[in-house]
Amino acid sequence: MPAVPSLEFRNAACLATPTGTAVRAGKKQGEILRIEGAAVRAENGRLTFVGTETEYAKTWGSRPAEVSVDATGMTLLPGLVDAHTHPVWAGDRGPEIGRRLAGESYASIAAAGGGIRATVAATRAASDEELRQLLRRRLARMRSCGTTTVEAKTGYGLTVSDELRALRLLASERGEILPRIVPTLLAAHEFPPESRDRPDEWVEAIASEILPQAAGMAKFCDVFCEEGVFTVAQSRRILTAARTAGMGIRIHADELTRYGGALLAAELSAASADHLLRIGDEEIAALSRSGTIAVLLPGTAWWMRARPAPARALIEAGVPVAVASDANPGTCFTESLASVAAHACLDSGLSVEETLTGMTLNAAASLGLAAETGSLETGKSADVLVLDAPDDRHLVYHWGVNLVAGVSLRGLWVPSPTT
Amino acid sequence: MPAVPSLEFRNAACLATPTGTAVRAGKKQGEILRIEGAAVRAENGRLTFVGTETEYAKTWGSRPAEVSVDATGMTLLPGLVDAHTHPVWAGDRGPEIGRRLAGESYASIAAAGGGIRATVAATRAASDEELRQLLRRRLARMRSCGTTTVEAKTGYGLTVSDELRALRLLASERGEILPRIVPTLLAAHEFPPESRDRPDEWVEAIASEILPQAAGMAKFCDVFCEEGVFTVAQSRRILTAARTAGMGIRIHADELTRYGGALLAAELSAASADHLLRIGDEEIAALSRSGTIAVLLPGTAWWMRARPAPARALIEAGVPVAVASDANPGTCFTESLASVAAHACLDSGLSVEETLTGMTLNAAASLGLAAETGSLETGKSADVLVLDAPDDRHLVYHWGVNLVAGVSLRGLWVPSPTT
Repeated sequence: MPAVPSLEFRNAACLATPTGTAVRAGKKQGEILRIEGAAVRAENGRLTFVGTETEYAKTWGSRPAEVSVDATGMTLLPGLVDAHTHPVWAGDRGPEIGRRLAGESYASIAAAGGGIRATVAATRAASDEELRQLLRRRLARMRSCGTTTVEAKTGYGLTVSDELRALRLLASERGEILPRIVPTLLAAHEFPPESRDRPDEWVEAIASEILPQAAGMAKFCDVFCEEGVFTVAQSRRILTAARTAGMGIRIHADELTRYGGALLAAELSAASADHLLRIGDEEIAALSRSGTIAVLLPGTAWWMRARPAPARALIEAGVPVAVASDANPGTCFTESLASVAAHACLDSGLSVEETLTGMTLNAAASLGLAAETGSLETGKSADVLVLDAPDDRHLVYHWGVNLVAGVSLRGLWVPSPTT
Repeated sequence: MPAVPSLEFRNAACLATPTGTAVRAGKKQGEILRIEGAAVRAENGRLTFVGTETEYAKTWGSRPAEVSVDATGMTLLPGLVDAHTHPVWAGDRGPEIGRRLAGESYASIAAAGGGIRATVAATRAASDEELRQLLRRRLARMRSCGTTTVEAKTGYGLTVSDELRALRLLASERGEILPRIVPTLLAAHEFPPESRDRPDEWVEAIASEILPQAAGMAKFCDVFCEEGVFTVAQSRRILTAARTAGMGIRIHADELTRYGGALLAAELSAASADHLLRIGDEEIAALSRSGTIAVLLPGTAWWMRARPAPARALIEAGVPVAVASDANPGTCFTESLASVAAHACLDSGLSVEETLTGMTLNAAASLGLAAETGSLETGKSADVLVLDAPDDRHLVYHWGVNLVAGVSLRGLWVPSPTT
């Protein structure tokens, strides 16, 4: 990593951030620090000052940073952390949307060669370079929309070599103006279409062929534990092998049916249980005991016209909640975690402050990065979002437009195109 | 209007547009023309070619336009027409959002000096220049998000002079890279807070003082016909006076209660009846008979957590439907009509094609501009949206990010900042 120039944000209308280096649950999820009239400074990619403009002028006023950004009228937030995305794919599922909106079932579309099958076929057919360009384009859009750290899953290759290819792309991406990537192996996204009648073969291929080669590239392993996809037993087999290989665990749990995924996440002390549309009191209690972070995906619930996950019950039970985009070509095609914020509030019932913590510190915690990013505090990586708005509430209130004036990526200032 | 250079869009992946110079209702609302491999040309601000790239190359290939835009991989759509917005206001209602999300009633927030009262106070206090800059900023954002024609209402002045000031601002705005503005007088947005106990005074001030001076500036007059705001009788008094003054009629109808607004719109053959969340079969039949256009505002329904207007029943009864943003500081703060498209489909049940017609040709028809804009056809104003996407479905499918590469405003090419 080359040295980055020192950076300062001066005279911001507002600064808003959760605080600390650990996940925040229960009432604490909604407690954020707000400073009116704020400044932030970074040296060598680390935050060295976070506080009031007045204090900054006293301390650093005579030593301006090499890069100085006038944040008058703007708000400083932690760079967003998107804890659940699927950005490695090719093809176009746009033409399916009419059928989906008309209510045609996922199974019927897939049976006709559409759905995830279409994405898998196009992804396998794409060259490494095509796939890399598609990935970079999506990561750049995420950054333009305020995301500075992104968990990124494989899962559209579904052969040993295609899954490892996707993982290599993610693990080797070093664009300095792209978000920090946390790669997750999701070979267990679906069964390969060509061997759907021999599901255990794929489970064994993941456990004994892919996982040993994925170790060192993937920080996490994820499984789509769901009726008709991976059973609880198959999920347990894969995830325990992943743990042995040194990876953390995430689970697509109880999205379409109440199936045991969240209970398995609690049993395995997974880092995260994601979706959770169908969970009830038992799952909530189990997650609360295990300390697993609930990653909610309100954009997807909206697109599936489903009842959102029980966000308030999770918060009240002390389960830490993260909010992610689920960026994917099937059920939620957006690179903008910021656009999901209003859905977290309006559809899922989170407060603005709970949502902000869920998109920053708690998301970082679910990725094992709470000491590194997810809040604006001295010593952390200089991951800053500059919002063209008088306070953080506009992230929700002023919806449908990109208010991100730019981000600092590990201390490197990257302005966004302004609208 | 100075002459604009000739303009061509070459080699677009797709072109999609409704057709004709009149509103499209019933089944015809969902019938759009799609061309794969398309080109468009404009001379002197008028469309002179709309068709295939192959045909264009034959006809115009040897005479390139002065401005040539490579639209490879992109989609050409009619510039969006936003038929319901409130862009003239000052102040910040962001801090209210916590109370609103927590369920505090509109009445309770207003009683504490918040809500529309706060916006009215800030708007009155703003200088002409402040208000003009705020308006221009919002219009520029609308343009960046693909809107080329915008209906714009007054309604946050609520004195004779402040309503006329807002109207003068709208009627005099001549920024050449801003959307075409259609000004609407909405003095009957609320009663002035200082004379709420003498409602008929304000009704008479509108009818006998404001309307005579507004004629020539406002193309339409609108009334918020609603329980606790303007009664049906008051609304009728204002709107018949407006008609006498030569204005068209729009009505905020049956948004919060089933109150008679849509029936009044039908009785008066209004150009549009807007919101319509609470209408039933009787209102739908009346609108169908009168030919009034139903302007649906799905973003607002979402923000109010209300059941959306009965879009499918309106379509099936042959009522032409437009879809608008309702951009306003209270119930729906977004400048992006494009962002409302996914809500029109997912929440209200319109198809992508019905939504596209609703945001272009039918919206233009509701403003009396169907012969001028709202579709890509030779002879019409060169109002074109270039979408960075392989087809029009991505306007809905690829949500939460701004895909607009730029717009042609009456033949003037204005690229958008790309994300």
